[in-house]
Amino acid sequence: MAPQYAPSLRSRLPLVAFLLETIFILLFFFFVKIEQREQIDRESDSKLFISSYAEFQDTHVMIFMGFGFLATFLLRYGFSGSGFNMLLAAMAIQWAVLMNGFLLPQRHHRKEIHISMKSMIEAELCAASALVAMGAVHGKTNPVQLLLMALVEVTGFVVNQWILRTLFLADPVYSIMLLHVFGALFGVMVSWVLHREGIIPVHEKEKTDRKTGVLAMFGTLFLWMFWPSFNSALVRDLKLKLTVIYGTYLSLAVSVVMAMSVSMLTSAKGKMNMVHVQSSALSGGVAIGVAMTAVQMPWIAMTIGFCAALLSSLGFRYMKNHMLLAFECHDTCSVLNVHAVPGILGWFALLFLRLASDESTVAVQFAVFHICVLLITVCMSLVMGTATGLFLKWSIWRPQQDRKCFDDQAFWEFPNLAVKK
Amino acid sequence: MAPQYAPSLRSRLPLVAFLLETIFILLFFFFVKIEQREQIDRESDSKLFISSYAEFQDTHVMIFMGFGFLATFLLRYGFSGSGFNMLLAAMAIQWAVLMNGFLLPQRHHRKEIHISMKSMIEAELCAASALVAMGAVHGKTNPVQLLLMALVEVTGFVVNQWILRTLFLADPVYSIMLLHVFGALFGVMVSWVLHREGIIPVHEKEKTDRKTGVLAMFGTLFLWMFWPSFNSALVRDLKLKLTVIYGTYLSLAVSVVMAMSVSMLTSAKGKMNMVHVQSSALSGGVAIGVAMTAVQMPWIAMTIGFCAALLSSLGFRYMKNHMLLAFECHDTCSVLNVHAVPGILGWFALLFLRLASDESTVAVQFAVFHICVLLITVCMSLVMGTATGLFLKWSIWRPQQDRKCFDDQAFWEFPNLAVKK
Amino acid sequence: MAPQYAPSLRSRLPLVAFLLETIFILLFFFFVKIEQREQIDRESDSKLFISSYAEFQDTHVMIFMGFGFLATFLLRYGFSGSGFNMLLAAMAIQWAVLMNGFLLPQRHHRKEIHISMKSMIEAELCAASALVAMGAVHGKTNPVQLLLMALVEVTGFVVNQWILRTLFLADPVYSIMLLHVFGALFGVMVSWVLHREGIIPVHEKEKTDRKTGVLAMFGTLFLWMFWPSFNSALVRDLKLKLTVIYGTYLSLAVSVVMAMSVSMLTSAKGKMNMVHVQSSALSGGVAIGVAMTAVQMPWIAMTIGFCAALLSSLGFRYMKNHMLLAFECHDTCSVLNVHAVPGILGWFALLFLRLASDESTVAVQFAVFHICVLLITVCMSLVMGTATGLFLKWSIWRPQQDRKCFDDQAFWEFPNLAVKK
Repeated sequence: MAPQYAPSLRSRLPLVAFLLETIFILLFFFFVKIEQREQIDRESDSKLFISSYAEFQDTHVMIFMGFGFLATFLLRYGFSGSGFNMLLAAMAIQWAVLMNGFLLPQRHHRKEIHISMKSMIEAELCAASALVAMGAVHGKTNPVQLLLMALVEVTGFVVNQWILRTLFLADPVYSIMLLHVFGALFGVMVSWVLHREGIIPVHEKEKTDRKTGVLAMFGTLFLWMFWPSFNSALVRDLKLKLTVIYGTYLSLAVSVVMAMSVSMLTSAKGKMNMVHVQSSALSGGVAIGVAMTAVQMPWIAMTIGFCAALLSSLGFRYMKNHMLLAFECHDTCSVLNVHAVPGILGWFALLFLRLASDESTVAVQFAVFHICVLLITVCMSLVMGTATGLFLKWSIWRPQQDRKCFDDQAFWEFPNLAVKK
Repeated sequence: MAPQYAPSLRSRLPLVAFLLETIFILLFFFFVKIEQREQIDRESDSKLFISSYAEFQDTHVMIFMGFGFLATFLLRYGFSGSGFNMLLAAMAIQWAVLMNGFLLPQRHHRKEIHISMKSMIEAELCAASALVAMGAVHGKTNPVQLLLMALVEVTGFVVNQWILRTLFLADPVYSIMLLHVFGALFGVMVSWVLHREGIIPVHEKEKTDRKTGVLAMFGTLFLWMFWPSFNSALVRDLKLKLTVIYGTYLSLAVSVVMAMSVSMLTSAKGKMNMVHVQSSALSGGVAIGVAMTAVQMPWIAMTIGFCAALLSSLGFRYMKNHMLLAFECHDTCSVLNVHAVPGILGWFALLFLRLASDESTVAVQFAVFHICVLLITVCMSLVMGTATGLFLKWSIWRPQQDRKCFDDQAFWEFPNLAVKK
Repeated sequence: MAPQYAPSLRSRLPLVAFLLETIFILLFFFFVKIEQREQIDRESDSKLFISSYAEFQDTHVMIFMGFGFLATFLLRYGFSGSGFNMLLAAMAIQWAVLMNGFLLPQRHHRKEIHISMKSMIEAELCAASALVAMGAVHGKTNPVQLLLMALVEVTGFVVNQWILRTLFLADPVYSIMLLHVFGALFGVMVSWVLHREGIIPVHEKEKTDRKTGVLAMFGTLFLWMFWPSFNSALVRDLKLKLTVIYGTYLSLAVSVVMAMSVSMLTSAKGKMNMVHVQSSALSGGVAIGVAMTAVQMPWIAMTIGFCAALLSSLGFRYMKNHMLLAFECHDTCSVLNVHAVPGILGWFALLFLRLASDESTVAVQFAVFHICVLLITVCMSLVMGTATGLFLKWSIWRPQQDRKCFDDQAFWEFPNLAVKK
């Protein structure tokens, strides 16, 4: 007979977390300093501080509030959705500061890692890609598995950036452009390897209700509202930054309208699906985030948002279920349709816009570069996702039973969560 | 026998939204550009960007988060309250950019519309006035009706501004001062024309509960916290901007205290009403927003907040029901008491403060101007609201039955909102 | 037989609030002006405005959104938790502006009080210390008692600052460093004096559920995300400000990981407790807030966060219940473990770091000063907390019965909270 309770993680999670946290503090002790004071005097000033701190904060809110509450739509998974998001992001950020510092050092800082607003923003972006990956496996993994997955994902993402910058001299802004595709494919592969028969055709606990649907709206709105800051965070040129902000804003506005329309149009009874709307409303931000450096006109941004929401809504409605039944690949938040597909759409838009505007020699050069970047990123994410999935399948991590999927009760004190003891 | 389900909007909303969105993209294609780069160099700089982007974001959060969640207080209307708010605001913003550009062009930009931080903030203000109007009809209209109402409201509001600026050379800051009065009266008239017998004396679904009351608190708080930015968004003079910020802040602080006190005092059992408190706490921001240019002393701001909350709380408690029974005019969020009455109170305060401080000739001039501005705005809103109501009564828009009022189930997939399919 | 309903506050709260509000407006009339315009020209400029307004807003969000929603974790106390927080903070801010102005005047402003960004930030910090105190008595007091407690607490906190600045020439930044210790001890003493037998061993309504646990997560996240701004708000030197921001950020990141790990490790079934996690995740911000001026290296900040979360989690799990049974002292949000203990830990860290870095003479001087500051603050808070508790025990304030503790129904219209009347 199957055991009644989910396996206890008491001997796993605290040990892994203590150990990792101690290693992190030791690594910080040896390698990490606060940005040197002389540098602040020279390179930045009060104005720059204000600007970059505000950008950091907008990103910070998106990571912790936006991603955290987007995952509370599951009826019985609110504590885990928001709580594990906070745990993972906090760990991923620390690890990303170290990885970025080792592999992608600032000039003149070869020997040690310096904490600055820029390094914190970049760490948050790495965490974002790990959280996208987590969207695919939400509810089917325990926090130890999630924690390990996040750290491997951040490693893979930074290594991918290192390859692109070293071999192709890619611009740092490519990290924003590729984080969605990398995270989504990575997560989908992990979910594919960790497939459970028990969640077919649909797990009884994988549903939402009136209240959790509204809670998830918070996550959507925080992501949606601050996305212009997110896309423009690594853009240093003020003119381009403004163009990116306006473009992202308009693209997202069109996405909302399209996500709702398509969701109603594809429903037999003419009713909208809240989960689809919340996810697809964001697809415009993903797509424009990839194409942004070439989008000069508002109507182009709006058209990209239009197409992204169309594809994403259709994908969520028809492809999610098909993928589960045909490929045994379950994708909880449908990150494939919300992050990967719009990301690739944006990639095509960027290619097309550059081919249309540049002269032929430069255009061919760019096309080759552009195709290589996508291919390498896709390969890296697929391979590392599969490997991570195999590693996490190891029973030492004590995954919960199928019955305990999508359920807070496996990890949180319930139901009489008395405040004392 | 009445049909069991609400009429499907499958053939209405997607069509209307696709069509409008396509028209908008075409209009943007022909007329709208991102602000020219030379202008950025000349007129603004990094500092101005930081300031105006922060102001834009605060307003952005108020529109989407604040208004969106204020409407989730209805027990069964959380999806619609937050979802339709997002849909309407996204459409209204696009339309407002076009309308503002055509009717209220910036100097030197006669031929084309330029997107800038300022134009985006102004578009959000127009959306705000449409959302105030929506507050009066929440729960009794379907999303197609709401969408059309929002676009007509924005048109009317911009035309009203155009009249005031052309005939009376009114300052642009008047758009903030009048948006509450215009939106509220417009919405109340629409609601009056669309009156249904079935919601008298009270609709069984028009109530709140423990959880939705707290959710609505988010909306209130986001509006309340960022109101100083909202009121000061169009004020360019730094000294006046600071005065407006301090005044709004203090006025709102007093409003909260008064709203709670009056709500308890007017209850037979000495208990507060959460919905009244949430709405009336904001009335100080409305009133000071109209009078702000003449308020130089903190105590005046506090007195205005005191009176606004007093009137608004009493109105919510006693007038809402009376209006329904006596005039057959149902006002879901009681926008008449929360936006129109404090707005007119602020109008009187401004008149009085100017009369007290200026010499007699100027004072009379100002009084005439001031009275004309209010009269025109009130007439415009009443006439356009009535016309819009008659247009929306057309059965082609397929309004839901009385039974399906205040109910998400008319428009959203329920109750087993399984995530897949 | 005990009465069925909680005693009506209809004759108490409105009277007290009207009276206080009228007195405040009169005091503002006689003493408070908006910062003079000449001063703005000279002392500050647009850049400073942007920076200080952003800092003010981050603090503002923490006070109203963060503290407000942290208290919604109680199943039946969401309206009161968020509503009374707003009421108290709004009153405390007005009173703090006056108290700060009278006792801790800016130079050159001896005769009158000037409202400025700085004075508003300082007022919000005083309100924060009152809200910490409120955490200890949540659910066991009525709003009149809370209101009076908040005003006395602010008075005591400002008087304490005045003593420290007058006698010891302490830096203004000490107000941030000591507000947690002062508020927590004050609140615990009030709770001790107001002890009720009826809540032992545990009140049936003092629990949380799936939905309220997620709502409280909002509060936690808003406090957690903006804490770097909070700690750095009074630091004027840009280099130190950046160091404080990075340190607070890292300390909080480690806190989250430790809070979850310890919560799982100390549970027999290996499950986390959401309420513990939400509170202890913040302890790193409290501790680093006290030690911040001496923390130069990231790893030190992380170690402080590590220890603070460890102590705080253990305290919440084992000490809260023990305190209730052994000392008859019930501490609803366990502010002793979340604010006082980490605060004192930070105090030791600061002492140790200064002793290790300074030469011996200065070190001894600092140690004496440092010990005096803590002793005076602790004495002040204990004495004033006890006195306030005795004052609030007076039956004229009509406290609710034991049965009506932790219950919104004592103060809010329920259960058919119809929107109209």
